[in-house]
Amino acid sequence: MADQYAQSGGDIRPTGTPAIPAIRWDEPPEGPVLVVLDQTRLPGEEVERVCTDAPALVEAIRTLAVRGAPLLGIAGAYGVALAAARGFDVDEAADSLAGARPTAVNLAYGARRAQAAHRTALSNGADDAAAARATLQAARALHAEDARASEKMAAHGLALLDELMPGGGHRILTHCNTGALVSGGEGTAFAVALKAHRAGRLRRLWVDETRPLLQGARLTAYEAARSGMAYTLLTDNAAGSLFAAGEVDAVLIGADRIAADGSVANKVGSYPLAVLARYHRVPFIVVAPVTTVDLGTPNGASIEVEQRAGHEVTEAVVPLAPAFGREAGGVPVAPLGTQAYNPAFDVTPPELVTAIVTEEGVLSPVTVDGLAEVCARSGRVSIG
Amino acid sequence: MADQYAQSGGDIRPTGTPAIPAIRWDEPPEGPVLVVLDQTRLPGEEVERVCTDAPALVEAIRTLAVRGAPLLGIAGAYGVALAAARGFDVDEAADSLAGARPTAVNLAYGARRAQAAHRTALSNGADDAAAARATLQAARALHAEDARASEKMAAHGLALLDELMPGGGHRILTHCNTGALVSGGEGTAFAVALKAHRAGRLRRLWVDETRPLLQGARLTAYEAARSGMAYTLLTDNAAGSLFAAGEVDAVLIGADRIAADGSVANKVGSYPLAVLARYHRVPFIVVAPVTTVDLGTPNGASIEVEQRAGHEVTEAVVPLAPAFGREAGGVPVAPLGTQAYNPAFDVTPPELVTAIVTEEGVLSPVTVDGLAEVCARSGRVSIG
Repeated sequence: MADQYAQSGGDIRPTGTPAIPAIRWDEPPEGPVLVVLDQTRLPGEEVERVCTDAPALVEAIRTLAVRGAPLLGIAGAYGVALAAARGFDVDEAADSLAGARPTAVNLAYGARRAQAAHRTALSNGADDAAAARATLQAARALHAEDARASEKMAAHGLALLDELMPGGGHRILTHCNTGALVSGGEGTAFAVALKAHRAGRLRRLWVDETRPLLQGARLTAYEAARSGMAYTLLTDNAAGSLFAAGEVDAVLIGADRIAADGSVANKVGSYPLAVLARYHRVPFIVVAPVTTVDLGTPNGASIEVEQRAGHEVTEAVVPLAPAFGREAGGVPVAPLGTQAYNPAFDVTPPELVTAIVTEEGVLSPVTVDGLAEVCARSGRVSIG
Repeated sequence: MADQYAQSGGDIRPTGTPAIPAIRWDEPPEGPVLVVLDQTRLPGEEVERVCTDAPALVEAIRTLAVRGAPLLGIAGAYGVALAAARGFDVDEAADSLAGARPTAVNLAYGARRAQAAHRTALSNGADDAAAARATLQAARALHAEDARASEKMAAHGLALLDELMPGGGHRILTHCNTGALVSGGEGTAFAVALKAHRAGRLRRLWVDETRPLLQGARLTAYEAARSGMAYTLLTDNAAGSLFAAGEVDAVLIGADRIAADGSVANKVGSYPLAVLARYHRVPFIVVAPVTTVDLGTPNGASIEVEQRAGHEVTEAVVPLAPAFGREAGGVPVAPLGTQAYNPAFDVTPPELVTAIVTEEGVLSPVTVDGLAEVCARSGRVSIG
């Protein structure tokens, strides 16, 4: 089977990571703004969206223009900094951002961390402008930490792959999108694959399309093509055939929340991959920064899973790109009136997770004590 | 979770099976034709497509205007009858129809059976017209047999459900489309669910959308809505969450080919469901007429799996219906140049199949000897 997939994507030239950063703070004369790459318009167009206040950012988060657990944390922090810089109510901004999407714990973490920096500055006697600067500083610090965490996760992750599968030539299956589009750096699971690619040890990246919103087809394929990787797209349900054919050496995914017992909430479709991986004795590896671990959530059953609107399933995803000669909006594929079950995430229990890779190293097997130890070691800024 | 899905589809009135049959023979003054419901245009439009020769039917089969294992068998037989009635080369028609799609064994079976009837008639001294009538008679017989088989499978299947889950209120998960659109009767797996619904013992039909061509969203949802069933659509990868939540009592699917060892080729995505079902100790039940069993294929590895074009994955499925105000043709969702792995089917080994339900009864456990015995008992017309 390998030969027929031996070429990487055709007419997109490898140019590394996206030309436009997923998120950036800017200070034009009109006042500070947060500029995000609108991910709903990829891969057709690279369009930036300018947020001048927290509600605009909340809207961008809810519509998934900005998405991905680590990036949501960074966005949450900058959003609070934006409210502070523009003189809006900082606590209100932090509350609305923290609750914009329920599952990704990073979002609340980032928003609360910036909020805490603001409070601390004020209680130390800073004036509003100085408190706003301190808030922005906290956001920038989180942004930089995430970039460093990304580098470390990539190194730990590749070392793990090389240990599990000596000799290289890794064939990695991934789900959803976990590259530079979701990170202050090069991402989580995708960063590991990218490091393997650069080291000449990635044989193929299998990219799950990731229904319903096709983050794999639209975003991971875009990042893989730009990186010059050998990659192949597949429908999520075709992964079973790949496992059965022995074409998958490891599954690498990100996470939106990791509970204290090691249960992993990630994009819907991750859990079926974990069950398939177990059945086929293939390593199932979760790559996520320590900020994704939520020791306040005891187990998988305690994780709130966001339920999204049914039209994401009953209507076809048509990228909102004039380049494709189409208008915005969904095209119905199911009969009118059809209701849909549309959880955004699922939960994989720790016994199906071979390893969790964080910037602090590799945790395997995944245990309550091990995870607590990783968090204690990380020295991440506490906002408790 | 049950309450929020307690309503069946909204503004489509229950009217039973489709108003237009999936296939019908007609004899207008211009000469005999085979009329098929164009399934690529459902659910937006119910449009018939008229085939005047075998090549037109082959085209309709390749583009999936006509699809579904039992219906393909019926179509193959009528296609040969059409060639005979119109004075074309019958053997050439049978060859081209038998090979139009490689995995569904019913197609070859139907074409060869009609071809055999034609040969037998000629060798018994019939003239061309009489041989053509005999060929059509063979096609009609297969059509009628399939309708009767459908009724029997539904009865056996519901009895099995009631035995496995006493007390009724069955919550059935199904994949792809297996109702009246694929059958001379009411179908295979869907017919079982329909019988349970009519008996008041179907609590919910969970409908996998079935990427890439969305036969679940477009066709099964259409049939479920017309039947007044309580049904809910989901992305294929959300099935894992349903299993984990204990919301699935049984999986019911059809089959495109069953090998002598009981390996089941069916729409891609069936095998991952079988693995999930095993992990969650949920019955995985295959419903198919005996014509789907191919004793000439020894095992799963011997089944040829059709690989289809990558654009089915890299472009969004937009129903070709003017009712939706769109032109025909796909809308790219992945970067240009992206290649896709797109097997149309996967193979589930017999050890993951709880039972095979045929018109001859229920085979459980699935064994080589049991399957051979079912075939011997069936009295189906041999074309060996």
